[in-house]
Amino acid sequence: MDKKINVTIWNEFVHENTNEACKKMYPGGLHLAIAAGIACDDFDIKYATLNQDDEHGLSEDVLKNTDVLIWWGHCAHDKVKDEIVDRVMKHVWEGMGIICLHSAHMSKVFRRLNGTTGKLLWREANERERIWCSNPGHPIAKGLPESFSLPYEEMYGEPFQVAPDAQPIFISWFEGGNVFRSGLTLQRGNGRLFYFRPGHETFPTFYDANVRKVIQNAVYWCNPTYRAAYPKTHRPDADEPITKKEVDFGKAGIVQD
Amino acid sequence: MDKKINVTIWNEFVHENTNEACKKMYPGGLHLAIAAGIACDDFDIKYATLNQDDEHGLSEDVLKNTDVLIWWGHCAHDKVKDEIVDRVMKHVWEGMGIICLHSAHMSKVFRRLNGTTGKLLWREANERERIWCSNPGHPIAKGLPESFSLPYEEMYGEPFQVAPDAQPIFISWFEGGNVFRSGLTLQRGNGRLFYFRPGHETFPTFYDANVRKVIQNAVYWCNPTYRAAYPKTHRPDADEPITKKEVDFGKAGIVQD
Amino acid sequence: MDKKINVTIWNEFVHENTNEACKKMYPGGLHLAIAAGIACDDFDIKYATLNQDDEHGLSEDVLKNTDVLIWWGHCAHDKVKDEIVDRVMKHVWEGMGIICLHSAHMSKVFRRLNGTTGKLLWREANERERIWCSNPGHPIAKGLPESFSLPYEEMYGEPFQVAPDAQPIFISWFEGGNVFRSGLTLQRGNGRLFYFRPGHETFPTFYDANVRKVIQNAVYWCNPTYRAAYPKTHRPDADEPITKKEVDFGKAGIVQD
Amino acid sequence: MDKKINVTIWNEFVHENTNEACKKMYPGGLHLAIAAGIACDDFDIKYATLNQDDEHGLSEDVLKNTDVLIWWGHCAHDKVKDEIVDRVMKHVWEGMGIICLHSAHMSKVFRRLNGTTGKLLWREANERERIWCSNPGHPIAKGLPESFSLPYEEMYGEPFQVAPDAQPIFISWFEGGNVFRSGLTLQRGNGRLFYFRPGHETFPTFYDANVRKVIQNAVYWCNPTYRAAYPKTHRPDADEPITKKEVDFGKAGIVQD
Repeated sequence: MDKKINVTIWNEFVHENTNEACKKMYPGGLHLAIAAGIACDDFDIKYATLNQDDEHGLSEDVLKNTDVLIWWGHCAHDKVKDEIVDRVMKHVWEGMGIICLHSAHMSKVFRRLNGTTGKLLWREANERERIWCSNPGHPIAKGLPESFSLPYEEMYGEPFQVAPDAQPIFISWFEGGNVFRSGLTLQRGNGRLFYFRPGHETFPTFYDANVRKVIQNAVYWCNPTYRAAYPKTHRPDADEPITKKEVDFGKAGIVQD
Repeated sequence: MDKKINVTIWNEFVHENTNEACKKMYPGGLHLAIAAGIACDDFDIKYATLNQDDEHGLSEDVLKNTDVLIWWGHCAHDKVKDEIVDRVMKHVWEGMGIICLHSAHMSKVFRRLNGTTGKLLWREANERERIWCSNPGHPIAKGLPESFSLPYEEMYGEPFQVAPDAQPIFISWFEGGNVFRSGLTLQRGNGRLFYFRPGHETFPTFYDANVRKVIQNAVYWCNPTYRAAYPKTHRPDADEPITKKEVDFGKAGIVQD
Repeated sequence: MDKKINVTIWNEFVHENTNEACKKMYPGGLHLAIAAGIACDDFDIKYATLNQDDEHGLSEDVLKNTDVLIWWGHCAHDKVKDEIVDRVMKHVWEGMGIICLHSAHMSKVFRRLNGTTGKLLWREANERERIWCSNPGHPIAKGLPESFSLPYEEMYGEPFQVAPDAQPIFISWFEGGNVFRSGLTLQRGNGRLFYFRPGHETFPTFYDANVRKVIQNAVYWCNPTYRAAYPKTHRPDADEPITKKEVDFGKAGIVQD
Repeated sequence: MDKKINVTIWNEFVHENTNEACKKMYPGGLHLAIAAGIACDDFDIKYATLNQDDEHGLSEDVLKNTDVLIWWGHCAHDKVKDEIVDRVMKHVWEGMGIICLHSAHMSKVFRRLNGTTGKLLWREANERERIWCSNPGHPIAKGLPESFSLPYEEMYGEPFQVAPDAQPIFISWFEGGNVFRSGLTLQRGNGRLFYFRPGHETFPTFYDANVRKVIQNAVYWCNPTYRAAYPKTHRPDADEPITKKEVDFGKAGIVQD
């Protein structure tokens, strides 16, 4: 590649400090395991976490220099400041890619980009998940088998309240009898979003080779081919002649830009 | 019909009190003209306005009893409280229909349901608009001609930043050389949204027979066939047996419901 | 209802005459069981079969008077004449609803309306299917439980090659480890299509109360609110003045209408 | 680029031999002008025409070695053999890109991939067209201005009968008062389709710099990132145990693969 893809992995980084099972599974934090799983010459990976500073590590400067933002959050969605959510959305609209993992389905960012609740069914029962690819021609599925399984996972089940234009790439089967659209793509403004379900904080999911491959593929897919300020409301002059009307109803004045 | 459709017309109702041209065109408020245009035996129409009380006239009780909410706002979008926006969205997700008119493209509700900026180009130049139906089989287009024109309107132009699943029903031609997707449908959760472009506050648009017909049709289309609390996150028991695993990684505890 | 919905159930009606298991399960034909399952005061149900006449029972007159066509076919897709397929598509484009059941995923009509192959994985192993509703607010899901199971079914599995705008209403879980988008809606021209997976010819699926309810709901949903000849190519006069150009490049002549 | 993109420009090549105005505007054929407009180091361009051989120049070998097929046809759509249409569709489903230009909206290939009629309004009146970009972040719009105009074009007008998942990239304004979704993207199987409206056979459209840029961009966008045989129906063994049922209903036998 001509230029490396700048990846920022944002991790809530709370469970790793409060829950023994999580701390043991992901010493140093989930973000380190995610990074290890996708690392390659094409990526330049940085980290950001909820409590590292008062901008959750997501300053304007960080986001401006991020091509693809990876998001993992779970128990502190409501601790993410609205102004940072707005900033992330602005960058997505301008072209920044975003990958929401697992419990990020309830993050403010994911729900806002969908315009929905993001809600679903769930069960924490250490059960087997089998993930089927429903769109094998999609770049995110490149190199993946027809299906693959994870021996231990939390269950997420339908109905999953997402926007109707979310395109399924993966659909999961769970041992306990549930199904779920586990991989979904979405476009908002100039930016691409990929949601991927697996990744429970106490299970070894982020060490799985197929899970890592999916996330790596998604970084390539979400990397913007174009990035620009989303259209600022503006008032163009007319390109074609406007006839003088017989009446003038007046104007109501300038509105917000 | 077995039961009347309960329509609530929400009007910002600011221009009518501050701008002479608007006051003259719509004495008593835009909401009265909109109501007059769609009134029929099947509808029970009520009003709500920004400053009528500290809930903008949109109490839980009002929304619970509203089948279709019509929204007109322009210069005071930022005065609408976030908690009321959240309440409106909850009701849309549960099935309430919503019709966003004209400058409501920048309302918090419209932008949030799209997950986009809602931005566009615009020009206030008293120009002719011609509206083409791009989906004549849609119920909202019922009884409308192939195209119709409005002699005096504000221009809205592409690019219009909406969600990709917004389906165009009408597309406008403007005298000054612009085009715009003037009628768009969207689904979020159980609820239907229709956006309709015409309706500038100082022009006689809401007295136009075709405009009135479109809005009336849209009320029928947005009226929910089903309304229920959107799926509350819940934790179902397994329907199928889950094998006992050789390892137990522990749990991270309960998350928000 | 003001007027009954005219339903035509088209059944290939081959297995019932050639396969003992099918004949025993559905004496008289699958169409009779489907009809018995959806019958109600609002529907006027008729039948058509592949070999009843040289138009497969689908004359212009029959289709003109059909609001919703139900299609079951399996081993004789290639026996359906192209001219009849074209006729069915024309009526769908004009507004006729169509419900494709089970193995109709490989029918010419289904594949043509999708623009895809309709292919999938399958296994005939007498296994349990559990069907989850992924869009509980959709009219087709009305009155159905969160999920329901069928004790004996053929398996259909992802990837399912359908058009990307096919909206999932139901997603199936199979005992053998597969998943499938079992209920899908589609719009083509003025007409609505619903695909529903269950319905293997030797299993008692069409006697299941939930399956019957889904198909009955789908008839209501597919029933056209508007039906008209799809736009015939026409050459309108200009509504706005076209300036006389300095050059005339000539014309290439009339094309097909 | 590591490897050139193999582009095949298919031109009906009839008007150029029968119509004086067309012959004079595009000596040697429209395909030469299209090729001249998009030529660059990254592309290896070849031609194919309706009457060059009994496969319209589109043998299995040619299509297998084509990354992106450009299609221009007008007065001889019905002369294209169904078996060649089937072959083109198979390659699109496997990943080959396709760009349909202007009157290719009525080609068998375009209509089949949409599952619709492809019909529209039209007028041959030498009028000005202004093309607006409705999705400036899309790679096909890269380097293009907010809008551009063509002084002389045929008019195509809404309603345009395409599949609902066709995403508008460009929308046109016509001097005579019509509008049209002039640039649309679609996905079918593994392949991408782009439809672009301008390109009347007697007007100098294919010499316009912006039109050429759009088509060149579209070649890059349609170039497959993945190409593989679309899923062949197959019968996988069960990954999970299927319980022995108390009844055996029998099988109906093997269906088509």
